[in-house]
Amino acid sequence: MQELLQVYKRVQPFIHKTPVLHSRLLDEATNANVYLKCESFQKTGSYKIRGATNAILSLTDTQRNNGVVTHSSGNFAQALSLAAKNLGVKAYIIMPSSAPEIKRKAVLDYDGIVTICESTLEAREQASIKIQQETGATFVHPSNDVDVINGQGTACYELLQQEQNFDYIIAPIGGGGLIAGTSLFANSFSSNTIIIGAEPFAVDDAYRSLQSGKIETNESTYTIADGLKTQLGNHNFPIILASVQQIIRVTEEEIIAAMRFVWERMKVTIEPSSAVAVAAVFREKELFKNKKIGIIISGGNVDVTKLPF
Amino acid sequence: MQELLQVYKRVQPFIHKTPVLHSRLLDEATNANVYLKCESFQKTGSYKIRGATNAILSLTDTQRNNGVVTHSSGNFAQALSLAAKNLGVKAYIIMPSSAPEIKRKAVLDYDGIVTICESTLEAREQASIKIQQETGATFVHPSNDVDVINGQGTACYELLQQEQNFDYIIAPIGGGGLIAGTSLFANSFSSNTIIIGAEPFAVDDAYRSLQSGKIETNESTYTIADGLKTQLGNHNFPIILASVQQIIRVTEEEIIAAMRFVWERMKVTIEPSSAVAVAAVFREKELFKNKKIGIIISGGNVDVTKLPF
Repeated sequence: MQELLQVYKRVQPFIHKTPVLHSRLLDEATNANVYLKCESFQKTGSYKIRGATNAILSLTDTQRNNGVVTHSSGNFAQALSLAAKNLGVKAYIIMPSSAPEIKRKAVLDYDGIVTICESTLEAREQASIKIQQETGATFVHPSNDVDVINGQGTACYELLQQEQNFDYIIAPIGGGGLIAGTSLFANSFSSNTIIIGAEPFAVDDAYRSLQSGKIETNESTYTIADGLKTQLGNHNFPIILASVQQIIRVTEEEIIAAMRFVWERMKVTIEPSSAVAVAAVFREKELFKNKKIGIIISGGNVDVTKLPF
Repeated sequence: MQELLQVYKRVQPFIHKTPVLHSRLLDEATNANVYLKCESFQKTGSYKIRGATNAILSLTDTQRNNGVVTHSSGNFAQALSLAAKNLGVKAYIIMPSSAPEIKRKAVLDYDGIVTICESTLEAREQASIKIQQETGATFVHPSNDVDVINGQGTACYELLQQEQNFDYIIAPIGGGGLIAGTSLFANSFSSNTIIIGAEPFAVDDAYRSLQSGKIETNESTYTIADGLKTQLGNHNFPIILASVQQIIRVTEEEIIAAMRFVWERMKVTIEPSSAVAVAAVFREKELFKNKKIGIIISGGNVDVTKLPF
């Protein structure tokens, strides 16, 4: 518990304390009492700056001098770039050639040093090793890293400061960093709260991993929730296995409907990956009836010219 | 000043204290220090519940027993319906047959009693008089009513509690209720702050009214900012004439770009009428350079299936 508090104190100066939103309309539509921890308003538009910041703050001075490297085409690329910039550290970002121009530009805006490679896992890993060898930079994994996991959990810590007595806290599951960190903080600071994951049916690797007890992969990765295509890792899976009571799977239609509800009725632009967690409450109304629920809204980075509605 | 404080105390239990958002990205893009008072998060999705509530609270008991009536196809229809419902008063809402089904449904959800009439001013006024005669209901104008004006200004009062020392406060101008109320509160509680209006070039009746000294009308009403098509009234125009230093006009392209900026970068769904005020800051960068600016974000009611980008 003390260690987690230290993480929060360390990260706090570099992040926003994001608002928790509550909506009568959402409560009425779900028959529950739902609070959204809106990391969509976080710096870089997602919670990932929390873990990125904590990872860099955990480095030795020598390591910080040599910079950090990661491969990501999504929110972690921006997050690590800004976290590094804030701390005067170099960030090397490996992006696939298929990444949209707008995402590359966002990383460059935060002074990230971009290396483009082919879209295969092998090419990304080779590029990463090459940069580590040439620069001495430390590799930071977007989700399967103890310091990243601890950092991501600080969103849950703030939520528990802002509202109390949650029956459930729900987070989306992609690589597993967010829900693992959420579990750690919830277990320590709100031990009666049950942690539930939310995942698209289309990429239900975490659901199957929880059943089989080993890390499963996805054969197909077609889902609108593009942040949730990745699989769990050896650092976060044991935490998830021990702490997450169940994983609720939702359809693509349910994700889109939940996203539209939050956009239209609550006026917050959330990304599809976050809508997955909201959709879980709509889907399992019996389970959540009259319960107090916190949802970690992971981010709001969406291409508004390509909406699904 | 005491009277305005009384207005706020009276209205406060029935409204949300909406958040004031600040964004490094917006500051960098405008070279100013900009705070958004987000009435998009207000009940019914716009500031109009403030004025509607104050108008009903200003009625005598006999008047309240007989209900209120207005004609509106937009945000005021929902606002008056909910304000009336909250206070146990009947609300008769006259809507043109051309109003979208979704808006009619929203009013019905708040127990508003809807009368559909033809889309002409004459038909609306006849329907209103008929309801007043039959029910004894009091007519409440959406913008040209002293109590409505005072109520709308409470958003500015909250903004001045949440942040201080504004060089400028900007509000969009449609019927004139919001900017008149904003001016009254700003003059009383932040007398050094300059009030500026924002309006589309396409419906620049208020701009021309400020020049000519009399209430002007619009020949065409084509603008994406559909809340700003109406003209000023005899109750709000004198206040505007005395207190609004200038009105900045913006193009349709500027409105859309500002709306997209706030949606994409700040993750808040604002309606085009609100984007007009944001666009004014982007347009007049020299005037606002390094100044502290408050913007009243009037609302967030948008059809997300019909976005301009």
